[in-house]
Amino acid sequence: MTPPVIADLRSDTVTTPTPAMREAMAQAPVGDDVYGEDPTVNALQAEVARLTGHEAGLFMPSGSMTNQVAIALHTRRGEEVICAEGSHIYEWELGMMATFSGVVPRFVPAPLGVPAPDDVRAAIRRSIHQSPTGMISLENTHNKAGGTVIAPEVLHQIRAVATGEGLPLHLDGARVYNAAVALGAELREITGMFDTVSVCLSKGLGAPVGSVLTGSAAAMKQAHRYRKMMGGGMRQAGVLAAAALVALQEGPARLAGDHRRARVLAEALVNAGFSVNLAAVQTNIVYATVPDAAGRAATWAERGVLTNALGPQSVRFVLHHQIDDEALDRAIRVLTA
Amino acid sequence: MTPPVIADLRSDTVTTPTPAMREAMAQAPVGDDVYGEDPTVNALQAEVARLTGHEAGLFMPSGSMTNQVAIALHTRRGEEVICAEGSHIYEWELGMMATFSGVVPRFVPAPLGVPAPDDVRAAIRRSIHQSPTGMISLENTHNKAGGTVIAPEVLHQIRAVATGEGLPLHLDGARVYNAAVALGAELREITGMFDTVSVCLSKGLGAPVGSVLTGSAAAMKQAHRYRKMMGGGMRQAGVLAAAALVALQEGPARLAGDHRRARVLAEALVNAGFSVNLAAVQTNIVYATVPDAAGRAATWAERGVLTNALGPQSVRFVLHHQIDDEALDRAIRVLTA
Amino acid sequence: MTPPVIADLRSDTVTTPTPAMREAMAQAPVGDDVYGEDPTVNALQAEVARLTGHEAGLFMPSGSMTNQVAIALHTRRGEEVICAEGSHIYEWELGMMATFSGVVPRFVPAPLGVPAPDDVRAAIRRSIHQSPTGMISLENTHNKAGGTVIAPEVLHQIRAVATGEGLPLHLDGARVYNAAVALGAELREITGMFDTVSVCLSKGLGAPVGSVLTGSAAAMKQAHRYRKMMGGGMRQAGVLAAAALVALQEGPARLAGDHRRARVLAEALVNAGFSVNLAAVQTNIVYATVPDAAGRAATWAERGVLTNALGPQSVRFVLHHQIDDEALDRAIRVLTA
Amino acid sequence: MTPPVIADLRSDTVTTPTPAMREAMAQAPVGDDVYGEDPTVNALQAEVARLTGHEAGLFMPSGSMTNQVAIALHTRRGEEVICAEGSHIYEWELGMMATFSGVVPRFVPAPLGVPAPDDVRAAIRRSIHQSPTGMISLENTHNKAGGTVIAPEVLHQIRAVATGEGLPLHLDGARVYNAAVALGAELREITGMFDTVSVCLSKGLGAPVGSVLTGSAAAMKQAHRYRKMMGGGMRQAGVLAAAALVALQEGPARLAGDHRRARVLAEALVNAGFSVNLAAVQTNIVYATVPDAAGRAATWAERGVLTNALGPQSVRFVLHHQIDDEALDRAIRVLTA
Repeated sequence: MTPPVIADLRSDTVTTPTPAMREAMAQAPVGDDVYGEDPTVNALQAEVARLTGHEAGLFMPSGSMTNQVAIALHTRRGEEVICAEGSHIYEWELGMMATFSGVVPRFVPAPLGVPAPDDVRAAIRRSIHQSPTGMISLENTHNKAGGTVIAPEVLHQIRAVATGEGLPLHLDGARVYNAAVALGAELREITGMFDTVSVCLSKGLGAPVGSVLTGSAAAMKQAHRYRKMMGGGMRQAGVLAAAALVALQEGPARLAGDHRRARVLAEALVNAGFSVNLAAVQTNIVYATVPDAAGRAATWAERGVLTNALGPQSVRFVLHHQIDDEALDRAIRVLTA
Repeated sequence: MTPPVIADLRSDTVTTPTPAMREAMAQAPVGDDVYGEDPTVNALQAEVARLTGHEAGLFMPSGSMTNQVAIALHTRRGEEVICAEGSHIYEWELGMMATFSGVVPRFVPAPLGVPAPDDVRAAIRRSIHQSPTGMISLENTHNKAGGTVIAPEVLHQIRAVATGEGLPLHLDGARVYNAAVALGAELREITGMFDTVSVCLSKGLGAPVGSVLTGSAAAMKQAHRYRKMMGGGMRQAGVLAAAALVALQEGPARLAGDHRRARVLAEALVNAGFSVNLAAVQTNIVYATVPDAAGRAATWAERGVLTNALGPQSVRFVLHHQIDDEALDRAIRVLTA
Repeated sequence: MTPPVIADLRSDTVTTPTPAMREAMAQAPVGDDVYGEDPTVNALQAEVARLTGHEAGLFMPSGSMTNQVAIALHTRRGEEVICAEGSHIYEWELGMMATFSGVVPRFVPAPLGVPAPDDVRAAIRRSIHQSPTGMISLENTHNKAGGTVIAPEVLHQIRAVATGEGLPLHLDGARVYNAAVALGAELREITGMFDTVSVCLSKGLGAPVGSVLTGSAAAMKQAHRYRKMMGGGMRQAGVLAAAALVALQEGPARLAGDHRRARVLAEALVNAGFSVNLAAVQTNIVYATVPDAAGRAATWAERGVLTNALGPQSVRFVLHHQIDDEALDRAIRVLTA
Repeated sequence: MTPPVIADLRSDTVTTPTPAMREAMAQAPVGDDVYGEDPTVNALQAEVARLTGHEAGLFMPSGSMTNQVAIALHTRRGEEVICAEGSHIYEWELGMMATFSGVVPRFVPAPLGVPAPDDVRAAIRRSIHQSPTGMISLENTHNKAGGTVIAPEVLHQIRAVATGEGLPLHLDGARVYNAAVALGAELREITGMFDTVSVCLSKGLGAPVGSVLTGSAAAMKQAHRYRKMMGGGMRQAGVLAAAALVALQEGPARLAGDHRRARVLAEALVNAGFSVNLAAVQTNIVYATVPDAAGRAATWAERGVLTNALGPQSVRFVLHHQIDDEALDRAIRVLTA
């Protein structure tokens, strides 16, 4: 028998819709979005575009799709995508950049998820004997590096490299709101310099489903075709967009609490003897070195605390709005028992 | 100023969720479907699999995605997909079979959307100088042919051809419930002989979003990977599945009315002097030859009747559950004025 | 035991190098063409470009590669290539347009291999719900239609359609010299209006290996990359180019004889009771309707006449410079026995 | 004015055909290899297969094509290819693994080009949330690591890993003869454990053009289709195969001299103050650290010594049979002046 779950720390994707979201879904005016006629989808797209500082947005069923549509937009077959080796677009998007867009990754070092602008410049290729660089992609916060934040100064420097070389710059902003909150910045201060930004509504912000890609109106028009090719043209998608609009209102204010609790958890794990790189605990994610990670995660799960064993000795814990201080206390007792 | 809409005959995709669907969305238990933990999604997948006579199902955001995942499942790069030239998988899915799966179509004649089994056999290629055939795909009802129905006998004959050649057989069942109703058959009588079936919930059945692919458990496991590649892995997708479950209960019984009304409309158009192939009016779709189709459709739209000009002289009308007898009467008055 | 071969009529690709070609291969100055340093390759490329009326050329190991590089040059993933259904780029190039370039064919009717300009215009697609047209491709002479010729007037009309729509126009000129000879035209009169032309040296012209793609200098620079991707970057390719240069000098003058002999053969076949569309016998190819084509071709092969059974009732005969009048006489005696 | 070239050390691909090769090309019996009828091609394929210890071989115009055909053989779209980051299949084959096969690389550390078997095992992925591993590829000698050799023991260990996981193992053997000579081994001792091997004839062995892929007869039959897709089906390719057969006879015996001269060059460069990792100088390649590599290479070229500046501070020198002791002496005087 499955025990009652004390805390599901596997990911911030596991949250269920709040009552306000349920209510919005039940009330939302909708239309056929394939014809561009869903007013709630249109409102969501406009709102996210406004927040990122872009002209237009396009709603899709997942962050993988918004990222892969952006790669298709910016590249031609046979080109390279400069990114960190641990990037979600490579590590968790199952070769789609190759299968759909026909492009390969070109890795730059990225300590704590932050590539040095000079390393980005050095990774650009132009020889006719080599694949040309097609685009540069960053991830902020950077999931695999521990939810780490790229500061605006670095973003501006990499933008300058990209502009100097005539290359487009994409942001995988699955958790870009976490970055903005950690930096105390407006969203557009860390998104406006990108050509395209993927914003996920169903992670920390808590919507049930969906991401929005933003960029120029011309790019979004082209993105429409790639979305349709991937099967992302949905009909009365306003039922999802309605919940996402609520997530945009409710969600950001809750993230600071998630970050504070991640810190509490990280320190508790260190005190219990686990190795945690505290410098990487900048937002809502904690990675700990755990011997026999899979076995340990299974034991914790039996006691009601769900975690994610991502390597032989690596466990990931993610805080989100459905884990409050009390639940965290109880979880910590299980984890450090 | 936009006039009040009397009838939106552009497609059966334009329907908005019924009160029962809204209620189900608001109440549905959900979980993270990327982890396979959304109970409502799981229930929907099992139910559609049961109905089609298959082992398992996989929920996706669109029928384009279920079709393209099926093509990926059944083919290797460089192969051919035998289908009718007007097939949705080719005509309306934007080259995805080429871009994602690396395959080309091989057309068979299909009068009224029904290929002759001998023509299917003749289209199979095996020479080492040619692309090998990878799969056979049918569409029932066949949208571009006019919502026409393929009878079980033909399905069994084409199945025999496929089996004899060791080829997989896929059904684009975007409107397969319309076919079952028109034939007076159980769904599984016209789906069970296929290796994979795509069933759309958001067309005639009326759900806001979603299609289900069904097939063997092993095929659905592999389909999971392709769905993720295309960005179809959604989180709390149960909010959509809940509405789709209602659509499965409410929807089929309403289709016979749509078919009857399509007939009424077709005859009214003929009486008004338009050319309609009445033999093709078998379910809920009517195609009429209309001089200056685009101009005429624009005029009708100004008078509150929305239609779809799909060619220079071709207009499509689609009946659905949100057009009742009275709305149809009023629409016919506009169309035949 | 294999009998002595009287005539190999399977294709004009079966010719073996002439003594002058052998001598040229043995003497040619060569270099590493991957570095652009093979003088004989450079001379061949310049010569073919001059002949077609283009700026630059690029040598490749086959006509399939020159065609597919051209498709890659002109298209982006998900687009459509307008062509005749029997086009070599679709029928005999094994889905490469899909696998490499991610594009699908869009067929136009082409009686005797000649599409009507209005049909080409009607096949162009621009709706955002459909794959956009990426290019138009013609084949002159058209192999599968029987070695048929497209006249300059039609070429200019289709060029006007392409220009009006901003679309690139490619010529598969595997047998374009046959077309020029049949028309009594200079090569450039039927090639200069194309954006790219593939000229095969190893068919009627008789070189052992190779085709040249011609176009603008900028296009050929980009083509270089696609050629390398496909593995067409060869090292001391001058040994092949030397033979091809001889083929360009020796070959064209011989083609009129091939055409005359094709006519003789066609009439002999008709007199012997086979059905041949004489209107299609315009150059060096003859298609005859032959009951039990494979069986009949096998019997003829046993008697020293090799032919190509391309369908259940269709046999192709191709004339080339290594079948002289005497060999043809002997072959006709076998074929009409 | 270009000065006389003292030594072209850019690559072992720059050699021109020997008199024996020219003679063989002029005499070779040939046929249409697209029909499998070129006796010289068939002889070459059989000979290379015998040498590598495989059932069958397939001749292609380049090593890039043999490698990419092998990748297509072993993978399905969306999978990963385990290889070293500096592998030729990734670094110099322009994204073809992505564009044609739809796969991405997964890098393993490879000090001196030799991956540790445990690292290979750790790189294999099986989670349904990740791209599955499709194949493992090695390169022996490893070009970018400095022409370094992988010993038979390591090859057997990695074979055991591959077999244990049911994964195919490919060898990029562009310079596998250099490895065999350096190891004092028969070719098949370092090739027989692979599923497929690409052997290049136009590098150290000196043929003008061509590589052969070897493997099982079934694999080569499938390879035939992929070769045709890439445009590698050549007609009277026997003219090239004839030279390659001579290269197989003449070439291997000359490689020990190239290796000895590479050592001489490396030590001379060290004595002249350049930094060279002597441990990596195992065959015919020398990498030296050279400040302002491009500028220095240009200066050397003006004085008749051609080299390859492959990085801002990295120059590659490759020995081959057209640089004898005397030419090397003169080159060293220029390089160390």
